Amino acid sequence: MSLFKKHESVLKNAIEALHKRTFFAAYPEHPAPAIYGETADADGQEKFKALLNTKFGELKQEGSTNWIGVEESPYTQELLGIKYPAFPVDTLITRAKSSYHVWRKVSAQDRAGILIESLERVKARFFEIAYATMHTTGQGYMMAFQASGPHAADRALEAVAAGYEELQRFPASTLWDKPMGKFNIQLNKEWRAVPKGISLVIGCSTFPTWNTVPGVYASLVTGNPVIVKPHPGAVLPIAIVVAEIQKVLAENDFDPNICQLAVDSFDNMITKQLAEHADVKLIDFTGNSTFGSYLEALPGKMVFTEKTGVNSVILDSVADVDKVAGNLAFSLSLYSGQMCTAPQNFYIPEGGIKTANGTISFDEFAQKLVDNITGLVDNPKAGPFVLGAIQNRNTCTRVLDAEKLPGKVWLKSRAIDNPMFKNARTSTPVVVEIDASHKDVFSKELFGPIVLLIKTKNTDHSLQLAQEMAIHHGAISCGAYTIDPSVREKIADVMALAATPVSFNLIGGIYMNQNAGFSDFHVTGGNPSGNASFTNPEYVIKRFTWVGHREPVPAG
Amino acid sequence: MSLFKKHESVLKNAIEALHKRTFFAAYPEHPAPAIYGETADADGQEKFKALLNTKFGELKQEGSTNWIGVEESPYTQELLGIKYPAFPVDTLITRAKSSYHVWRKVSAQDRAGILIESLERVKARFFEIAYATMHTTGQGYMMAFQASGPHAADRALEAVAAGYEELQRFPASTLWDKPMGKFNIQLNKEWRAVPKGISLVIGCSTFPTWNTVPGVYASLVTGNPVIVKPHPGAVLPIAIVVAEIQKVLAENDFDPNICQLAVDSFDNMITKQLAEHADVKLIDFTGNSTFGSYLEALPGKMVFTEKTGVNSVILDSVADVDKVAGNLAFSLSLYSGQMCTAPQNFYIPEGGIKTANGTISFDEFAQKLVDNITGLVDNPKAGPFVLGAIQNRNTCTRVLDAEKLPGKVWLKSRAIDNPMFKNARTSTPVVVEIDASHKDVFSKELFGPIVLLIKTKNTDHSLQLAQEMAIHHGAISCGAYTIDPSVREKIADVMALAATPVSFNLIGGIYMNQNAGFSDFHVTGGNPSGNASFTNPEYVIKRFTWVGHREPVPAG
Repeated sequence: MSLFKKHESVLKNAIEALHKRTFFAAYPEHPAPAIYGETADADGQEKFKALLNTKFGELKQEGSTNWIGVEESPYTQELLGIKYPAFPVDTLITRAKSSYHVWRKVSAQDRAGILIESLERVKARFFEIAYATMHTTGQGYMMAFQASGPHAADRALEAVAAGYEELQRFPASTLWDKPMGKFNIQLNKEWRAVPKGISLVIGCSTFPTWNTVPGVYASLVTGNPVIVKPHPGAVLPIAIVVAEIQKVLAENDFDPNICQLAVDSFDNMITKQLAEHADVKLIDFTGNSTFGSYLEALPGKMVFTEKTGVNSVILDSVADVDKVAGNLAFSLSLYSGQMCTAPQNFYIPEGGIKTANGTISFDEFAQKLVDNITGLVDNPKAGPFVLGAIQNRNTCTRVLDAEKLPGKVWLKSRAIDNPMFKNARTSTPVVVEIDASHKDVFSKELFGPIVLLIKTKNTDHSLQLAQEMAIHHGAISCGAYTIDPSVREKIADVMALAATPVSFNLIGGIYMNQNAGFSDFHVTGGNPSGNASFTNPEYVIKRFTWVGHREPVPAG
Repeated sequence: MSLFKKHESVLKNAIEALHKRTFFAAYPEHPAPAIYGETADADGQEKFKALLNTKFGELKQEGSTNWIGVEESPYTQELLGIKYPAFPVDTLITRAKSSYHVWRKVSAQDRAGILIESLERVKARFFEIAYATMHTTGQGYMMAFQASGPHAADRALEAVAAGYEELQRFPASTLWDKPMGKFNIQLNKEWRAVPKGISLVIGCSTFPTWNTVPGVYASLVTGNPVIVKPHPGAVLPIAIVVAEIQKVLAENDFDPNICQLAVDSFDNMITKQLAEHADVKLIDFTGNSTFGSYLEALPGKMVFTEKTGVNSVILDSVADVDKVAGNLAFSLSLYSGQMCTAPQNFYIPEGGIKTANGTISFDEFAQKLVDNITGLVDNPKAGPFVLGAIQNRNTCTRVLDAEKLPGKVWLKSRAIDNPMFKNARTSTPVVVEIDASHKDVFSKELFGPIVLLIKTKNTDHSLQLAQEMAIHHGAISCGAYTIDPSVREKIADVMALAATPVSFNLIGGIYMNQNAGFSDFHVTGGNPSGNASFTNPEYVIKRFTWVGHREPVPAG
């Protein structure tokens, strides 16, 4: 049975899900033994440990000139000691170019079959990838499993489904039959979806698979060879994915260089060299705005970015203020504010927040939020696992600097103990009150567990600031709390104009940071937080060109 | 009956045609009395004449500060004397901004209904537009009628259909219902297609409606207000279209400034001021590569260009060399080579062209082509009408300069008489032989009736040059003649990699210059001849942003 036939039904379901946007997941998000096997977790952990201080030998890229590895665990603050094969840029490009002319001629069905098969292989390594993710990003175990495993695989499948569907949009051939009165002009026409060329996918340090696989699978399903350039600090999770893709390619007699890993180190970054190479036509990037904007401005490239944003929470009126404070405390603490969807700017009217039982003052709400954060952080069964560890030590500095911002410090950051890793790099959230007049302070992303409580004149003022930040500095998410339908529609409309999705009135076990494959578009592409979206049609269509040829039908 | 209901079936048929890409036309291309009415032609001509030397008073744009008009007929070489209302850039932008917030809230159905209704009104003025087109562009009567009338209307309808379909792609709202084991998380989700903002559509002097209406209708159907900035030399045809759009808008109680005309003159061009304005988000452009590339590089804009290309004909082997020479002579003579799809570089192997009856030498083919051109040009019933007149007098200079190119001049250009217009500006095609080593000569567009016969080593060499030109300098069309299936596939593949559609073996009454709405993509967007395509999904998707909001289902 062909791999396409084997995976046809999941592909069909995924395409249907893309349109319906109701709940759909191909990969179970719970690391339950009943789903993944009784020993899956322990086996995965053991496999991860066995990789430490070794050469990563799974890639099918021959003749490396160098072995590189500088990953460090935010939990142990020790080097992982894993070395990856490295290659000169010219070698990577030459191999990609040659594999392009193989891969572009493979049918969309065969490409989709191979790619979904690779996801099935990755599924068998979700636990290993989870530990690899923990010890490169600092994510807690549960997030590391879900984000780098099933959620990433779902996002990859989503990209395959979107790309596959677009490749079917126009007929491979048709008869064009034009009546001219006494005769017809008949042309045989054909349409080819021509892949753009070499695709470079640049990873980030916090979500090394989740943010990388959409670009990888979108480029591959549309026929482009891919060079994956991971962040030097978070290589292993995506290295395992690339290795599995290469294995499936090789098993099916395709050049494994159709998907290459390009590892570099902080002291010798190859990203610009790759990005500026004339043969690189597609670039996917997740990371800081400066580098993202540089990439977007490169001439002759199709560039897909997720950069940074300034995410807002607008507090107008609430049904149950304690549930709101609890939900938001969790949102801002999750992975210590290192998610691109984490809230930063909380806009609270100086007159307070309306509730069914009267108004909650600015100070009362601030105190409730602080109490909820402290309760979560100090809960030994929750705090260390929700917060995880800090990926980059610069983030710890930024958090400390936040105490010097011009305003009342409602909550100071501190380190907490992680019961499993005594050397874990931790920083609890810092909460600072900022007057709305200090735009310079809150008009940029302060990456990490930094929360600004911004005192505004009223909800219209809050909304105006949230929109302005999103339009000029980008926003990936927005939380809003209002029980007034007309205020709700105003927020929905004004933030939509800033291309920012709004989560309204979230309480309980769902958070504004979360983002579901096959339903929520991740980043809209319509504000400075990024020009691409997982996975809208644009995300795949721009990776190939429709070219039509035609010829008269032979007489007779 | 709503305008949507009135036009629903044509919209549905148009969407279906976009997918099937078989023959479809909503507007009959023949100016036949039986179709358009016995007096339609005479009435149209009379209406056109009545507009000469008057102020164009049909626009519903109030309070013009100035009246401008510098159009000149290539047939009479006299000014048309028509003056159009002009407005400061700030006025145009302010009006567009205010109309944005009206138009973006109109449903896709109502927008489509209004737009198709406007096309019906334009249809009633096809003949008037035809004369307006003749006397601004120099096109012959038949082309002026077809290109500016029915073919343009079909392209506009195509854009409406493509945009309407994309706006329906995701549900306006849905229930997201995620099983969590003992309970479900339920969210109400909604998706809004948010128009990008003010759309600027910049017209060209040779196809003032055909190249302009796709951008206008694509932007309008997706909810963006449009400012149409015509070429100062070709205003009237598109002014009539804009006037009809404004009338339908006003009749339906919408602000006519949803679609504004922005006329300027050569000595005071406002294009850059408009394009660089921060509130302009979308730019459509047809014209020269220098200005198109400047627009493409403007930050923060979504830009759609059709620039220039170097179109090739590859001659390998033919079934009937006389039919081929006849077809090509017509192609290069049509509208005096002023079509963006006209062939320029004819690649002929030094060893000649293979036929069933032996090889035709380079010189023999060159002579046959010249004879066919001369036969066409000197036929008083065909020549003047096929060639039309020269839009821009610089083109006449360029044609004369071509005789000084380094190679044998096979045919000199000359003026011919037009029986209806004694002052018509005409130039017959010039044909020059160029050695393949003179890449500097043939690696740029020589706009107008200039034909280069390039002597190559063999067909592989021809193909390599044609691909190189397309990749580096752009190509919108390519003609190829071969009766060898393997050569055919090689050409199809190599030119597809250069994102250039190939017309194979055209003879008889169909030409490589021609391009059918709902079937042929015009410009692929994949080479330097332009980054957009009439009408692929990208052309409409990029004009709006999908934004999703969500909120828990109320407990209940």
